[in-house]
Amino acid sequence: MTNRIHGGDVEKMGKKLGLSKEELIDFSANINPLGPSSKAVGKIKESLWQIINYPDPECWELREALKKFYPLNNENLIFGNGASELIFILMKVLQPCNVLIPAPTFIEYQFAAMSVGSEVHFLKLNKEDEFSFPLEQLKKQAVKNDVLFLCNPNNPTGTLWDREQVREIVDIAQRNNLFMVLDEAFMDFLKDEKKYSFLFEKEYLDNVFILRSMTKFFAIPGLRLGWGVGPGEIIKKMHLAKDPWNVNSLAQTAGKESLLDEEYIQKSRKYVDIEKEYLYQELKKIKGLKPYCPSVNYIFVQLTQKNLTSGGLRETLAQKGVLIRDCSNYPNLDSHFIRVAVRKREENRNLVRALQEVISQG
Amino acid sequence: MTNRIHGGDVEKMGKKLGLSKEELIDFSANINPLGPSSKAVGKIKESLWQIINYPDPECWELREALKKFYPLNNENLIFGNGASELIFILMKVLQPCNVLIPAPTFIEYQFAAMSVGSEVHFLKLNKEDEFSFPLEQLKKQAVKNDVLFLCNPNNPTGTLWDREQVREIVDIAQRNNLFMVLDEAFMDFLKDEKKYSFLFEKEYLDNVFILRSMTKFFAIPGLRLGWGVGPGEIIKKMHLAKDPWNVNSLAQTAGKESLLDEEYIQKSRKYVDIEKEYLYQELKKIKGLKPYCPSVNYIFVQLTQKNLTSGGLRETLAQKGVLIRDCSNYPNLDSHFIRVAVRKREENRNLVRALQEVISQG
Repeated sequence: MTNRIHGGDVEKMGKKLGLSKEELIDFSANINPLGPSSKAVGKIKESLWQIINYPDPECWELREALKKFYPLNNENLIFGNGASELIFILMKVLQPCNVLIPAPTFIEYQFAAMSVGSEVHFLKLNKEDEFSFPLEQLKKQAVKNDVLFLCNPNNPTGTLWDREQVREIVDIAQRNNLFMVLDEAFMDFLKDEKKYSFLFEKEYLDNVFILRSMTKFFAIPGLRLGWGVGPGEIIKKMHLAKDPWNVNSLAQTAGKESLLDEEYIQKSRKYVDIEKEYLYQELKKIKGLKPYCPSVNYIFVQLTQKNLTSGGLRETLAQKGVLIRDCSNYPNLDSHFIRVAVRKREENRNLVRALQEVISQG
Repeated sequence: MTNRIHGGDVEKMGKKLGLSKEELIDFSANINPLGPSSKAVGKIKESLWQIINYPDPECWELREALKKFYPLNNENLIFGNGASELIFILMKVLQPCNVLIPAPTFIEYQFAAMSVGSEVHFLKLNKEDEFSFPLEQLKKQAVKNDVLFLCNPNNPTGTLWDREQVREIVDIAQRNNLFMVLDEAFMDFLKDEKKYSFLFEKEYLDNVFILRSMTKFFAIPGLRLGWGVGPGEIIKKMHLAKDPWNVNSLAQTAGKESLLDEEYIQKSRKYVDIEKEYLYQELKKIKGLKPYCPSVNYIFVQLTQKNLTSGGLRETLAQKGVLIRDCSNYPNLDSHFIRVAVRKREENRNLVRALQEVISQG
């Protein structure tokens, strides 16, 4: 069984290391390096009084704000206490016998599937093919499965598929009665989202659920906020599969206000775009590291020296207050892969310096 | 099927009435009338920055704070995005075929049971017996069921059972292989909690799950926070049945800080104790109303005039900016019952005045 370890557990790491949260630079969670929109934070402060009321079960204001960006119908839309909650609720509703999950990808898909007793099958993304999508392999495995997950861009590899490529996968799924969960958690980081997000498809499909997160780009993982778009029948069942107040009031406020902060959105995209290129180029210069070309705010890196393991590197860097994601608990990855978030220039420099030190000493 | 309507939907009611939230007095949700602890609110403001980190999946600080009040083991404790979330997760784990639910009681038990395909059976609490617990009836129905819910004190009736009485019910459950969900959501309002809460039992039972809410007494329903204590095996399964980050960071902070604010806790209990007695006495004076003796911060009221219905009364009072809970969607209640929260003296006076006006005109 896959070990259920994630990045971002700054609390636990700090305690273990005897360091305060402030002394740690967290490259293990993929959060917008600019932090939350200051307008959103201001609005939360202003409207703290609302915690005395139950949250709006329909998330009306947030819903209206989202509609300015995406073609959305109320009956196809659901909000979650983070996107992760929606994965669990969707599995509860679909009750699939067999679930097909690319490997490596976000590990909670597995846990959500197992939580309803599904058998998990892996669709291997091969290192030799640069972790590209194995269409031919899918054709073989599709018929035996009920649900297929696809994370686009993929976490942790960063592989990005455009709409045409996704359509090809969706076509195979349709022909094989495979329900598709399309996780676009990091899609907001892209400047040309329309080229990639399946939310902009003309035709609405009854075997596709599109999942979005608001915690990564808007930097509010502590508040929890995600949403999903799916067939009306499924959405109706999902509402009945959960309690009515799953999205807290402050998350609703933060989500809405963040969406209204256009300047922040533009600035964040631009910043991450430049920084990811900078960090990628710097990592390439370090002997023993093979970074994969990033699509959004994190970089997947192979450790090419045999004696350098992801677990060892993680421990050594942690001592220096630098947290990275050891990817060895992802299915189909060995102990020679790490993932690092793209952060601010100064922080990225620190990461590069720390890596150089560790590797030259190793 | 029961209509899934709850109190506290101030958002929707305000819109419907064309009134702002500030113009409404909400007696339909049972929240501590003193509002949240100012220390807790202060701490939230101070630590807003933490929304940039993922919440602590283990809720360690909150956990430690709770242990000062209750005898708790880590392996028996779980935290939820509100107590309601835990009801749904528990049902997902237990997958009961038949669930026995007192009627009337909190309606989400039903929805949680139905969400996993359970058949719902009602254990009728009779008006003629002042909604007391029907022990003899339970003995008859116990054997056919897998799970029994008990809300103590009961929502909406206010009926309170002491530990000895609960023990009697638990005994019957044990003898019949009935798993018991004991919902103590309003227990914190009691000055002599030890006399009533099953958390203080010496022996730990493997067929009892005790549910607690932190949103009512600590007045943070918008933030969502609940916890539960149950058999280690069940708790372990519940952790695997949900995503790891279900309790947001600010709820964790609010919960911990509220628990530390002893002065606020004492003051709140005293205040509600006095006000509930005041409101109860005033309601008794109104012809056509039969209030039931309250145990905590809400009062269950029968409308004894045939022409006065709960739906009608709710509408008329709403026009005056006063929201009450129409109880007609509770199973086993007809359209002659309402529930009102105990609020501040001035607000309670407003409620009494509004009721007097409506009833004398009716």
